[in-house]
Amino acid sequence: MSGGCPYFEKKLFKSKLHLNEEEADDSQKGINEASKGGIIYGDYLQLDKVVTAQVLQSELKGNKIHDEHLFIVTHQAYELWFKQILWELDSVREIFISGHVRDERNMLKVNTRIHRIVMIFRLLVDQFSVLETMTALDFYDFREYLSPASGFQSLQFRLLENKIGVPDNLRVPYNRRHYRDNFKGHESEMLLSSEKEPCLLKLVEKWLERTPGLEGNGFNFWKKLEANIFEGLCLEKKKIVKMPDSEEKEEMMEELTKQKELFTSLFDIKRHEHLLSKGERRISYKALQGALMIYFYREEPRFQVPFQLLSNLMDIDTLMTKWRYNHVCMVHRMIGSKAGTGGSSGYHYLRSTVSDRYKVFVDLFNLATFLIPRHWVPKLDPNEHTFLFTAEYCDSSYCSSEDSD
Amino acid sequence: MSGGCPYFEKKLFKSKLHLNEEEADDSQKGINEASKGGIIYGDYLQLDKVVTAQVLQSELKGNKIHDEHLFIVTHQAYELWFKQILWELDSVREIFISGHVRDERNMLKVNTRIHRIVMIFRLLVDQFSVLETMTALDFYDFREYLSPASGFQSLQFRLLENKIGVPDNLRVPYNRRHYRDNFKGHESEMLLSSEKEPCLLKLVEKWLERTPGLEGNGFNFWKKLEANIFEGLCLEKKKIVKMPDSEEKEEMMEELTKQKELFTSLFDIKRHEHLLSKGERRISYKALQGALMIYFYREEPRFQVPFQLLSNLMDIDTLMTKWRYNHVCMVHRMIGSKAGTGGSSGYHYLRSTVSDRYKVFVDLFNLATFLIPRHWVPKLDPNEHTFLFTAEYCDSSYCSSEDSD
Amino acid sequence: MSGGCPYFEKKLFKSKLHLNEEEADDSQKGINEASKGGIIYGDYLQLDKVVTAQVLQSELKGNKIHDEHLFIVTHQAYELWFKQILWELDSVREIFISGHVRDERNMLKVNTRIHRIVMIFRLLVDQFSVLETMTALDFYDFREYLSPASGFQSLQFRLLENKIGVPDNLRVPYNRRHYRDNFKGHESEMLLSSEKEPCLLKLVEKWLERTPGLEGNGFNFWKKLEANIFEGLCLEKKKIVKMPDSEEKEEMMEELTKQKELFTSLFDIKRHEHLLSKGERRISYKALQGALMIYFYREEPRFQVPFQLLSNLMDIDTLMTKWRYNHVCMVHRMIGSKAGTGGSSGYHYLRSTVSDRYKVFVDLFNLATFLIPRHWVPKLDPNEHTFLFTAEYCDSSYCSSEDSD
Amino acid sequence: MSGGCPYFEKKLFKSKLHLNEEEADDSQKGINEASKGGIIYGDYLQLDKVVTAQVLQSELKGNKIHDEHLFIVTHQAYELWFKQILWELDSVREIFISGHVRDERNMLKVNTRIHRIVMIFRLLVDQFSVLETMTALDFYDFREYLSPASGFQSLQFRLLENKIGVPDNLRVPYNRRHYRDNFKGHESEMLLSSEKEPCLLKLVEKWLERTPGLEGNGFNFWKKLEANIFEGLCLEKKKIVKMPDSEEKEEMMEELTKQKELFTSLFDIKRHEHLLSKGERRISYKALQGALMIYFYREEPRFQVPFQLLSNLMDIDTLMTKWRYNHVCMVHRMIGSKAGTGGSSGYHYLRSTVSDRYKVFVDLFNLATFLIPRHWVPKLDPNEHTFLFTAEYCDSSYCSSEDSD
Repeated sequence: MSGGCPYFEKKLFKSKLHLNEEEADDSQKGINEASKGGIIYGDYLQLDKVVTAQVLQSELKGNKIHDEHLFIVTHQAYELWFKQILWELDSVREIFISGHVRDERNMLKVNTRIHRIVMIFRLLVDQFSVLETMTALDFYDFREYLSPASGFQSLQFRLLENKIGVPDNLRVPYNRRHYRDNFKGHESEMLLSSEKEPCLLKLVEKWLERTPGLEGNGFNFWKKLEANIFEGLCLEKKKIVKMPDSEEKEEMMEELTKQKELFTSLFDIKRHEHLLSKGERRISYKALQGALMIYFYREEPRFQVPFQLLSNLMDIDTLMTKWRYNHVCMVHRMIGSKAGTGGSSGYHYLRSTVSDRYKVFVDLFNLATFLIPRHWVPKLDPNEHTFLFTAEYCDSSYCSSEDSD
Repeated sequence: MSGGCPYFEKKLFKSKLHLNEEEADDSQKGINEASKGGIIYGDYLQLDKVVTAQVLQSELKGNKIHDEHLFIVTHQAYELWFKQILWELDSVREIFISGHVRDERNMLKVNTRIHRIVMIFRLLVDQFSVLETMTALDFYDFREYLSPASGFQSLQFRLLENKIGVPDNLRVPYNRRHYRDNFKGHESEMLLSSEKEPCLLKLVEKWLERTPGLEGNGFNFWKKLEANIFEGLCLEKKKIVKMPDSEEKEEMMEELTKQKELFTSLFDIKRHEHLLSKGERRISYKALQGALMIYFYREEPRFQVPFQLLSNLMDIDTLMTKWRYNHVCMVHRMIGSKAGTGGSSGYHYLRSTVSDRYKVFVDLFNLATFLIPRHWVPKLDPNEHTFLFTAEYCDSSYCSSEDSD
Repeated sequence: MSGGCPYFEKKLFKSKLHLNEEEADDSQKGINEASKGGIIYGDYLQLDKVVTAQVLQSELKGNKIHDEHLFIVTHQAYELWFKQILWELDSVREIFISGHVRDERNMLKVNTRIHRIVMIFRLLVDQFSVLETMTALDFYDFREYLSPASGFQSLQFRLLENKIGVPDNLRVPYNRRHYRDNFKGHESEMLLSSEKEPCLLKLVEKWLERTPGLEGNGFNFWKKLEANIFEGLCLEKKKIVKMPDSEEKEEMMEELTKQKELFTSLFDIKRHEHLLSKGERRISYKALQGALMIYFYREEPRFQVPFQLLSNLMDIDTLMTKWRYNHVCMVHRMIGSKAGTGGSSGYHYLRSTVSDRYKVFVDLFNLATFLIPRHWVPKLDPNEHTFLFTAEYCDSSYCSSEDSD
Repeated sequence: MSGGCPYFEKKLFKSKLHLNEEEADDSQKGINEASKGGIIYGDYLQLDKVVTAQVLQSELKGNKIHDEHLFIVTHQAYELWFKQILWELDSVREIFISGHVRDERNMLKVNTRIHRIVMIFRLLVDQFSVLETMTALDFYDFREYLSPASGFQSLQFRLLENKIGVPDNLRVPYNRRHYRDNFKGHESEMLLSSEKEPCLLKLVEKWLERTPGLEGNGFNFWKKLEANIFEGLCLEKKKIVKMPDSEEKEEMMEELTKQKELFTSLFDIKRHEHLLSKGERRISYKALQGALMIYFYREEPRFQVPFQLLSNLMDIDTLMTKWRYNHVCMVHRMIGSKAGTGGSSGYHYLRSTVSDRYKVFVDLFNLATFLIPRHWVPKLDPNEHTFLFTAEYCDSSYCSSEDSD
């Protein structure tokens, strides 16, 4: 903004534009006030494109159906917001990819943009209430004209899934076809390339692996945690053993055993690899440790914003899944649950995508299984462990971040 | 839909289109499955126009600011929905203008579409939460580039106000300029013409004037109502007079007097004309009577949907005013309350539009002042007054309504 | 309201109460203005009970956890709203049970109250966003103190399910126990009795069976519909047969066959009985016919509000299912997906209730499968079929309805 | 949680309670499974109080009106949530009062709780949509029975206003009476005491005054900022002077002058004191500086969460004002705009409270007037100014914070 002219900063609602000197002459011509220099609202927003893009197929086919307009506008609004989500997502991925995330000044930006995606998804979930003012009967009147257009062909939604991190092998196939078969040429290539680029999940994974405090020769969180947990369980066992025999005692002992198994599994890297291979876990063992560390020390200055980030990532997952579910509900209402003539049912396909298979950050949810009492969490000594309140800086990358943004 | 092919009705999610016979040949060419015949999603929604219309002024000026994209998309989403509101509004106005509303089969349609506008406005009010993820500081970084573009230049919003019925003479001027001065040529003409066409308020007024039961030689609701009210007040007075003297008695008498004045004013057509001239009432005396009649007999079969319609009209008013207020709040946050350099403050202007001057159906709200006990409402005898459960039909217009729709 | 005193009607914000004569003396004592006569806000709302009912178990156990307060208040808010839903539900059921629904003046009331339930559920779905400000870690800190309290023990929620019409035999058992085992004594009896009373589904079913126009000796909708559909399919077949041989033709013929099967099943009462026995349909064959008749003739004056009612019933189903799904999402975040120690997983149980088994009005959704082109719908002649615009009245029951309300 | 028994942590949905040894005997008695040991849902939530607190005045007066139940439940739900807001507010105030906020580990807690208040207010704003299902006519039927109960008597709402920081002298009087006159005895004292305790505004003010970097002998943000701004303005002036004479040039010069005045006022402490005395500013000059510093350096690690906090405080203000406005809209619909008989109009009173007088953190909004180009912001050198990425710790207070919480 080096060339910015600060004393025009309040001019938003004024009718003149700040022009640089070369352009100034043109602005003097006696044209209508509204357009004298600068850009006007409708041109800025390219409304000639946006609000003229509603062409009813039913009208083209000579049978104009009023409600088709709502159908078009709703879907366009969805696509507009998908565009915005992709914009935020790409910018966040860029910060991670370029390594700028190492300068912790960028954490606010990352977190704010992820939170914005959350707010957009919240709106998109609510937006169904508008389309739901159309009944199945209204829809029936024009749905034949739309064929074969279908939401399955939304390029942006597929890009969004890929860039967040829905893995190809966990997708539910529809009519035995690969999702990419719905797209041709350039679009298909964009999808392929989005599958190959680092998705948000993978970038967050790398970032979590770098969580300070995990290093074996430093704080060594994981070792300390393991020790504390098993010591704790052991103490519990001693208490139970001393109890007089009873049904209660038996049950407690049984549960203790289960707890022990649970935590044994947590510290078993082989089991982690196994779950990874089945898609039940999605991030590396090291990243899992980082996430748990952030959970337990979330109040430490350096972990406050990272903790918010993890919460926001779960929000995105939850909202995407709510969006899918709302979509299912609407489809049920619009076309019923039966399969279309020939081919499987859109309803049942969509329903199958409302599943943990499509929850990208499922590990962040499932960590709730491994919570422990606060006094089992390894203690920190602020004098010794300054890393928790001293942020990392790398000023050069910071500046280039600004440029690249 | 006479040429419709019903057995393709479930084809929405299928990849083939029903083609009429002449077109059938072309469809046999071996092109990609996704596009074989028919229209595909992205083309149907004209996404090449909609999601490519985001050009950042800051980027053009060599200083790309990330958040400008959100600013653009949010405003485009608003405009998309304004387009949809206008679509519904025009269709409803058309039903009223053409007289199709006399066929009461059209009431469902009218009511449904007005309700849809309500649902859209509800969404638009919520939509601010997304733009509010942008801070004043983020906005500052690109707002100079937008000049002189401004929401005051939203053609569709002004059309919408005019078509609902915001009267020119009650508008708050901004910077001493007429709102239409922000528009040129074609747009200015569209606005002028929208001011001249019958607005929703005027059409509803005409419709209310025809409320069955108002006729002097029929049920004569208004005369009966007047008689009942003053008889009721008289009885109350008698009761009070009999009470022993007390502060309580005095107060009750005082209030009775005020009630009497209030209702005297209701039945004073001169006073109505006076309030009309000041803009404090907006509909004719006859229409006011019709609205009150619908209020009091809302459970009668013929008045159930009309009553819903009146409620929905109030909802639109309320939501538009909430939208305005949310807008004010956002502007306060974005640019503060001070006037821009030179010119009055956008904040204070917007604030002044959150006013009953902009409530189109203000009479429907204010009728709440004239409610009475149920037993004062003139009695109906179903055997005599069949008009309340026998709907009006005019089959010829019904059919033409279908065509025109 | 016969004893009502109308000229005090505006006294809401005034500090005096209207007292009948006997009480008047007491009111003269010189007490504080705020309490002089009448009831004050806090007493009216019994806030001494409502806002003192937040006792933290964690505090009782000597380890006060801040967030437990939110947990309590949120659940109390849910229960308050469940109470309101039951209030509306009972009143609607009463109108149906008493036969007052035959007086069509009551349809507005029924529809308005069902719509109110919709609005409450909408709020309840949104309300999760507040509880979601609590993280799994915050919850962990006090969740052990709550044992064995659990949402499974919400009496009102179970009553609500029963009164709407979730059938006992379609419930998913939790930990192999019947849902009623979570309740004892009086509560268990209330549940049992709610299972025996006519639920909303059954009452709506009876009402649908009485839809005018179904009678075999009258309009005979069902017979006419069947004839039209098969005639229509036949005509389609003839068109296809004339086409030159092609892949296209084969596919169209295949689809026609499927359509024929579909509609044959619709008119097959045996199949209906079979689906009923499996729980895939829930209403009688006659009621299904009534619903479809209302769908097709929804614009007829007598069917406008009934059509809205059917839509609102679907809304309730959809929102209950969204509520369940939001609940699942929250539980996933709070406790992960693993089973608790001993016993099955709450998460997986809850997930299994987000199912069409719990959709009470599933038939109304599935009717979307049987839509047909408008010109296949049997024609009405307004001169002949006056039943569609002449509402039914029964004045005596109407009055008693007022009393019972 | 020292006595916690971790291996029962998953018992939430189980039917047994963990009992300490003394209590264990009692638990063995053969009582119903649902109540064996521990607390059950209904008792935990004290539902015997909460869902039995709905007593209809209309029913007591012998004229039961169905919709009064909704009126009661809605207000109780509001009061429940007000209780929760007070709970969060008090805890945050306590952290500030006790000085624990100096340990920056507490910032996450403060911010999270303030954000929770935001989320609750968001819900409360939406909640009006439920009460709005009641029409003016429904309300009329029972509103006389409520007299003189009124929302003006909500103790919790007034406490909430006081504790956030609505100042007594800026309140709009209603019917010429002080707001506290609506309360008697104990409640009046609670209000008085809440006025005397430090409100959130004052606590935030003190905290802002301590913003690191403000000190005259340290970074000295304010002096540097002043110097940069006037240097910047000077450079702009030079540029303009060089332009050839034109209307454009004159306008730019005029605006520059206004900008200069604006910023001169910012650095004029006398003017600040004057605005303070008029209530147009609410926080000290030093605090204002702190807020602006946080705005400009929001991406620095130590300022990221403080910046979020300032945003959340504005959200609270905005939402309270939206709540007020929604309330006004509802009152308009329910009772119209006319004054009640005797006394001023509730509608107009409420409308007057939707004003910047009631915006507690109005300064945070108005700072948007003083934004400047990024390159005018005084530069930081991370090597020199480590205070921006090294958080303050005070371990002793941290522990006691835990206790007091």
